[in-house]
Amino acid sequence: MSESRTQRPATVADVARTAKVSKAQAARALGGYGAVSEPVRTKVLAAAEQLSYRPNALARSMNTGRSQTIGVVIGDVENPFFGLATRGLSDTLRQNGYDVVLANTGERVDVEQDAVRVMLDKRVDGLVVSPASSLHVDHLSGVLASGRPMVFLDRSIPRLGVDSVEVDLRGLARQATRELIELGHRRIGFLSAVDAPSDTYSPDIELSNSSVAERLAGIVEACGEASIEVDPAWIRLNLPTPDSISAATRAMASLENAPTAVIASDSMVGLEVLTTLRADAVRVPDEVSFLMFDDMPWSSLIDPPITVISQPAYDMGVLAAQTLLARLGNPQIEAARHVLEGRVVHRESVARVPVPRPAGTQGAASTT
Amino acid sequence: MSESRTQRPATVADVARTAKVSKAQAARALGGYGAVSEPVRTKVLAAAEQLSYRPNALARSMNTGRSQTIGVVIGDVENPFFGLATRGLSDTLRQNGYDVVLANTGERVDVEQDAVRVMLDKRVDGLVVSPASSLHVDHLSGVLASGRPMVFLDRSIPRLGVDSVEVDLRGLARQATRELIELGHRRIGFLSAVDAPSDTYSPDIELSNSSVAERLAGIVEACGEASIEVDPAWIRLNLPTPDSISAATRAMASLENAPTAVIASDSMVGLEVLTTLRADAVRVPDEVSFLMFDDMPWSSLIDPPITVISQPAYDMGVLAAQTLLARLGNPQIEAARHVLEGRVVHRESVARVPVPRPAGTQGAASTT
Repeated sequence: MSESRTQRPATVADVARTAKVSKAQAARALGGYGAVSEPVRTKVLAAAEQLSYRPNALARSMNTGRSQTIGVVIGDVENPFFGLATRGLSDTLRQNGYDVVLANTGERVDVEQDAVRVMLDKRVDGLVVSPASSLHVDHLSGVLASGRPMVFLDRSIPRLGVDSVEVDLRGLARQATRELIELGHRRIGFLSAVDAPSDTYSPDIELSNSSVAERLAGIVEACGEASIEVDPAWIRLNLPTPDSISAATRAMASLENAPTAVIASDSMVGLEVLTTLRADAVRVPDEVSFLMFDDMPWSSLIDPPITVISQPAYDMGVLAAQTLLARLGNPQIEAARHVLEGRVVHRESVARVPVPRPAGTQGAASTT
Repeated sequence: MSESRTQRPATVADVARTAKVSKAQAARALGGYGAVSEPVRTKVLAAAEQLSYRPNALARSMNTGRSQTIGVVIGDVENPFFGLATRGLSDTLRQNGYDVVLANTGERVDVEQDAVRVMLDKRVDGLVVSPASSLHVDHLSGVLASGRPMVFLDRSIPRLGVDSVEVDLRGLARQATRELIELGHRRIGFLSAVDAPSDTYSPDIELSNSSVAERLAGIVEACGEASIEVDPAWIRLNLPTPDSISAATRAMASLENAPTAVIASDSMVGLEVLTTLRADAVRVPDEVSFLMFDDMPWSSLIDPPITVISQPAYDMGVLAAQTLLARLGNPQIEAARHVLEGRVVHRESVARVPVPRPAGTQGAASTT
């Protein structure tokens, strides 16, 4: 196993030798051209499988006019959600004979515009993109105009008519928020790194990142159902750095009507919120309940184990790859929104809202 | 701030307007060609800075014969070490007018061979690679033969004469191991995902991944200094999946001469070791001391906070980019090994070796 990984790649000659046929026969069978008998074809394909033979991309490209390369443009290579989704994408595309070229936008539209241009320059056969913005999309329209298939990962821009692979973030956010409300919370905070037109909430705010917009919409909807008026100061956006997240966490905690529960938009924001609460000796969940989007291996190792909204990131990558492959095979397929299941994983960072404590006593909070 | 991010990129015309000069003057000043007075040049560059102007890559490529693209081939996009290093690389390269194209090898030589071929096909101006193997290097020699500059990140292959950016992993591993030995540990375990010729240690083992080879060498050297004979069963390699890490952790713990301290080769391995110890109710550091390579935001949030060997991953990316840019400017620079400082960060997961406890009592371990 470990041996085969480090050997040089198998060639047509290796396949021919293993299949005990001529090199010309092997080449015809592998290339799918010219006359070759069924028994020879079967032997050659079995040998190719055994040797993990992969055709030479350049030669193939000359035959097909395709580069056999897919461009993947992701929002943030440091976010483990994208790390896992990228592995799902890469595994699936490689299994189907495609090389993968990645670009990271850091959630910036200008970087994404450059990345998409570079991918088109580099003649990729198709693109998977997690668009940083649903407002600035000329470069994405350009991809469609070029005739190259494209699939959106984690986000959608309905008016472009592009396949997307997502989970129902709005529904999950609504569910998690309803659960907080059932535990007595009526002041619920939300922190996100998202690039937004204002630093706090307003009912008419328009977020260009659809995946954060859905999270926020779900929270606000659940609050609306419970006749909770959302204080703009509970919702903090434009937090791209650890320092800004830390400052926003402290600002929120020092409000007179400070949230009794806080939701982090992703695991990177969540880590910084938790680090700040720890530094300030704020006890979770006794003093504030906490939950975050994305389940991480460390979520259940820290004290207390963290309640999360889990997304099937790897499977999302696999499905995005499959959707793109299907479209490469048949460009006429109707575009669709592919929604995978996520779920709220209940651990110990969420509790019933603390009873206001009389001076000099410790308020006891019952853990759910 | 957030506005400027989402606006369309500034053009030469925008720069000219802001600088109050003609478009031809702005173009000459930005392009660094033709006659332009110093006051005009200063005004134009100030305006370009203010507007975050980036020259059009295609136009530039026509002038220079370069694609202004750098290929970055990393070992594992899911490992946060590479996420952070990649950001350092990208930030620096973009500031210098280069686009970045990434490929992930999953530490597999065959994938790396494909990735390097794709990068050359795509006409990158240079490459940054964290080579999966120092044994199978024909594809890397091919890069050198093509005349394109290359820098190794996190790893080196001395015989190729390529710049590398690393930390002194051997020295750090030796230091951390010496500290364990000073605390009375004489059975020290090590777990790594590295692709190795055997699953356990032998004195003549040859690891193709130089960065893991250095970690292991430092541990073995420190043991040698203390006349500790390393039991092969204490060193577990070939652990690419969570399940294999978990099984190896349990196998090691069930040895008659089980290690009293365990070192994880990186944070991903570390997470799985910790998860397994937690599941088996093995107390860190009372029953086993634990430390790992790479400092993560969660390292100090979990219970107990984890002692780590910290590497300046972001700075490594920056230096790798700077080294490549210098080489693009002057291909004659002598190749060098660039070694950045790492350090052991002492937290609470390492303690004096537990005193063997008489039956029926709890052994008390003093925390360092």
